[in-house]
Amino acid sequence: MNISIIGLGLIGGSIGLALRKTHRVIGFDQNPTHAKRAVERGLVEEHVTWPFLLDEADIVILGVPVGAIREMLPFVLDRVRPDAVVLETGSTKQGICEAVSTHPKRGQFVACHPIAGTEFSGPDAAQENLLLGKTCIIVEGQRSSDQAVRVAQDLWKQCGMVILPMEADAHDRSLAYVSHLSHALAFVLAQTVADLPDSDPLDRFAGSGLVSMVRLAKSSPDTWASIFLDNRSHVVAAIEDWSERLEQLKKSISDKNESAIKEFIQKSNTITKRTGAL
Amino acid sequence: MNISIIGLGLIGGSIGLALRKTHRVIGFDQNPTHAKRAVERGLVEEHVTWPFLLDEADIVILGVPVGAIREMLPFVLDRVRPDAVVLETGSTKQGICEAVSTHPKRGQFVACHPIAGTEFSGPDAAQENLLLGKTCIIVEGQRSSDQAVRVAQDLWKQCGMVILPMEADAHDRSLAYVSHLSHALAFVLAQTVADLPDSDPLDRFAGSGLVSMVRLAKSSPDTWASIFLDNRSHVVAAIEDWSERLEQLKKSISDKNESAIKEFIQKSNTITKRTGAL
Repeated sequence: MNISIIGLGLIGGSIGLALRKTHRVIGFDQNPTHAKRAVERGLVEEHVTWPFLLDEADIVILGVPVGAIREMLPFVLDRVRPDAVVLETGSTKQGICEAVSTHPKRGQFVACHPIAGTEFSGPDAAQENLLLGKTCIIVEGQRSSDQAVRVAQDLWKQCGMVILPMEADAHDRSLAYVSHLSHALAFVLAQTVADLPDSDPLDRFAGSGLVSMVRLAKSSPDTWASIFLDNRSHVVAAIEDWSERLEQLKKSISDKNESAIKEFIQKSNTITKRTGAL
Repeated sequence: MNISIIGLGLIGGSIGLALRKTHRVIGFDQNPTHAKRAVERGLVEEHVTWPFLLDEADIVILGVPVGAIREMLPFVLDRVRPDAVVLETGSTKQGICEAVSTHPKRGQFVACHPIAGTEFSGPDAAQENLLLGKTCIIVEGQRSSDQAVRVAQDLWKQCGMVILPMEADAHDRSLAYVSHLSHALAFVLAQTVADLPDSDPLDRFAGSGLVSMVRLAKSSPDTWASIFLDNRSHVVAAIEDWSERLEQLKKSISDKNESAIKEFIQKSNTITKRTGAL
């Protein structure tokens, strides 16, 4: 297959690394430094100028921020061959699906969310095994042609992923809680701590707890501003749900209500039961 | 030296493992299962009944929750030999220091906070190298005798720790931000996510981001209820500071203010500059 990847960062680049042995993979990145580095690292065989890399493609994969996916997707569908399949990898789905809901080539498009990532970004963050063993959500599969869904499933399986079908709104609500909220909290915590006076020797007394809580705060502003905006109603709802619970814990602390605090923490301890490996 | 450790969990047990080769280390834990397990694992040479393990000790180390330290400390100082040194390992300091500020044997006591830990608790969580390379804060050292401070410093250095002196209030305020707040956020996030409907297959779509954000939510209810209560004014202030910043991010998201969101995230990205290794 001829595979064309738009956006050669953490996700696009990792897909390239996972597929380059069995397919001809070319790509494009609008950042010239990233484009050069992607070829040097062998994430793609060749860097081909936009939009010409769409013309020969059997499969096109968009690995750019969700706002850019929404903007590019109608044009990409317009341009690709009638038997090509177009996939994207965004962390939100409803807005993207709406952007092409009436497109005459909607059947050639499959909305996908490979749930994998690190706090790093750009072509140097790409890893051959990033997707291995992770879940890829396919959204609104009934709006895609059977052939396009089959191609998408085969591709993610070749990357070692397990497929999970979902509807767009359910996906966006769930991800607001399990992923987008976590990132918002890490960004806020990092700032709160970074603004402590210089007299606090953070490097000396920050333990492993803080390290794991602020890891995500290193994530890309472009990627995450785009996700927060695109999924803003669910993200704001998750933040409000969260804030009410924090107020409850704060009140128990202010009230010196020891049994309420313990009960709160015991309830939190049960997260492992819901999440298996966590 | 004869060292007696009260509380044979994560911290007390790890100190025992680090010191048992060069000292005679005995201990006590009020939980009979933990006491038995501590001896089986060799965290201490012998389990000796409270309060008799105090009588022969050159050094007594309290590794129990901070509320219990406050209660036990005056009694421990009353009972120990006139040349013994008493240390504790609590995550808060002001309340503990106040509890013995007028004690006639105040000079024999050194308030210490070895900053090390994991999300696990009890004797099975103890690790020989848990303290290695970490920082131990010594608080209000000027209220301890020079000899007691020397003994404390030597002991923590034998565990591989670097010593940092601080005042009690500055310690409690800083730790509220860099440690206690992180734990509060993890507890709240774990609950928020755990309460999602069963139809959300969390084990399938929770990525590595959520894993690192809820790791601390497995921490001990006894330990953390005690810390939150003991340090409640600083913890509540840190939560309020935090909440204002979260409101600011939420407002930027609601207002679709892309440049404000990006600026917020860029500022968060700088956490690495303040914290070295983070």
